[in-house]
Amino acid sequence: MSLQPAPPTRESSDRESLKRVTVIGLGLMGGSLALALRRAGLAEHIVGCGRAELIRRAQEMSAIDSGCTDAEDSVAESDFVFLCTPVETSIALLKRIAPRLRPGALVTDVGSTKSAFAAAAHEILGASANERVLPGHPLAGREVSGLEHAEADLYAGCVWVLTPLADEAVVAGEAAVTGKAVNAPIASHRALQAALEAIGARVLFTTPEEHDRTLAYTSHLPQMLSTALALTLEDAFGSIGNPALQVHAGGLRSMLRLAGSEPAMWEQIAASNRINIAEALERTEAELRKLRESLGGPDFRTKFEQAREFAKFVKG
Amino acid sequence: MSLQPAPPTRESSDRESLKRVTVIGLGLMGGSLALALRRAGLAEHIVGCGRAELIRRAQEMSAIDSGCTDAEDSVAESDFVFLCTPVETSIALLKRIAPRLRPGALVTDVGSTKSAFAAAAHEILGASANERVLPGHPLAGREVSGLEHAEADLYAGCVWVLTPLADEAVVAGEAAVTGKAVNAPIASHRALQAALEAIGARVLFTTPEEHDRTLAYTSHLPQMLSTALALTLEDAFGSIGNPALQVHAGGLRSMLRLAGSEPAMWEQIAASNRINIAEALERTEAELRKLRESLGGPDFRTKFEQAREFAKFVKG
Repeated sequence: MSLQPAPPTRESSDRESLKRVTVIGLGLMGGSLALALRRAGLAEHIVGCGRAELIRRAQEMSAIDSGCTDAEDSVAESDFVFLCTPVETSIALLKRIAPRLRPGALVTDVGSTKSAFAAAAHEILGASANERVLPGHPLAGREVSGLEHAEADLYAGCVWVLTPLADEAVVAGEAAVTGKAVNAPIASHRALQAALEAIGARVLFTTPEEHDRTLAYTSHLPQMLSTALALTLEDAFGSIGNPALQVHAGGLRSMLRLAGSEPAMWEQIAASNRINIAEALERTEAELRKLRESLGGPDFRTKFEQAREFAKFVKG
Repeated sequence: MSLQPAPPTRESSDRESLKRVTVIGLGLMGGSLALALRRAGLAEHIVGCGRAELIRRAQEMSAIDSGCTDAEDSVAESDFVFLCTPVETSIALLKRIAPRLRPGALVTDVGSTKSAFAAAAHEILGASANERVLPGHPLAGREVSGLEHAEADLYAGCVWVLTPLADEAVVAGEAAVTGKAVNAPIASHRALQAALEAIGARVLFTTPEEHDRTLAYTSHLPQMLSTALALTLEDAFGSIGNPALQVHAGGLRSMLRLAGSEPAMWEQIAASNRINIAEALERTEAELRKLRESLGGPDFRTKFEQAREFAKFVKG
């Protein structure tokens, strides 16, 4: 797998304001993004799009300057559009707003998978897709959701993956290796990258396909393991009131934490990255079988030590 | 599965000192136990048994009153003996110390599995096994080990399972249900229970077999899942230096935490609870397969919501 850090944007002109911004979807992600852009002085005007009640609350939080309940109208005058909704919703929204985008405007999203959104962008926008859409994914998940938990610091220190629809990932990757400041060739792409860095994110470039394959292992697989653990325990213990469930050390809680995640979001992730997740699950099923067969035998220790070395690296 | 809370010890005489105590194994568990008994004023004299260097450090920490590098000699005058070593070591130690125990002395241990130790106690002590040995397991694991991390508070608030070799679990279980203060019939067992409660532990009674079956699901299975996840990721990403591993949210770290556990201890747990762990693993393998087959289908959401409800309960 290859994932390339973006070369930092070098020209001060790149740090300029995104001018007029529309944020569609005023939940944890969209609300936090608006607050972060606002605090960093990166937008002259932020339009928030969502239900009237959410617009009112986002205005009270000073996250947005104006609100619009209609997605198509909300983008008509903006230079940058952030789709802060689950994958399938963002695809439907892109279809609706595409005809209303002004020349030069750039659309990005924050969805957990990228291939389906990228394919939809190609289909909707054709030859101009790469210029008009730069898919993204900030790795800033939290167990809570909703505008009430939004905060300007949500993206500080997080990895934000951008998955260009054309060859920019290769260009950026080469730049990272050579250390030369070869920036993305499209000005609006450079401006987006600079803005994300300015709110504290670390930008990495890769292809939509590579993103989805990577995330199947680093995010979707851990989620499925936590969910499968919960299902196994429920099956084994029958009732959740069973006192046997009190008999555990801290390990069980940490392994069940992810199982508490939002089902609606994960339903869309599972559907849009099915093949990669299935492959990751099959490999883990095989590892579990081998571990099971090694219980009490000489291979167990070797496997355990190998896993321990690896886990240390990811933790450190 | 049935696990019964012990009725709290009711007679003030039960709260008396354990008199002369020997702690064999001066690591995190043994060191913390000595510190806790000492602070609670529950021992008149604590003999520590381990390597000379550990004895010296335990004395510097005021965890023990005297030291003895020979296990057999260390128990000769004690009323209570705590084996604070891994399962197989504790079995070997029990064999060695049994002939030297004074009349009325009680041996307990802190091993992670109980059936193998219980079987060994029956074999070594025959008809007097129940009177002389009360196996135990405090659920107070930590990621660190060693005397340097020992603390008097380690067992405060933890569940401490006792697995009597005879019918006491049943007696205690009935007492818990009826609310009557039927205590364990053997005085030294009551004294041990009272001392553990006095250092902050919540005592539960069950059989060695039930303990091992329960822990296979609540402790050993989560450990194996974390280890299998690490092995899968290492296989998928090849090198631990792969930048793709930076692309994860917090979830991956929490799911890999257990994989960093001590291999030597887990080798003994895996060997001594092989059949139960294998059963738990097979069930999880089946759950993963079903989850995989449900990706993108209508069952996925149902399973996900079911797991979420269960996880909420264990967390709350």
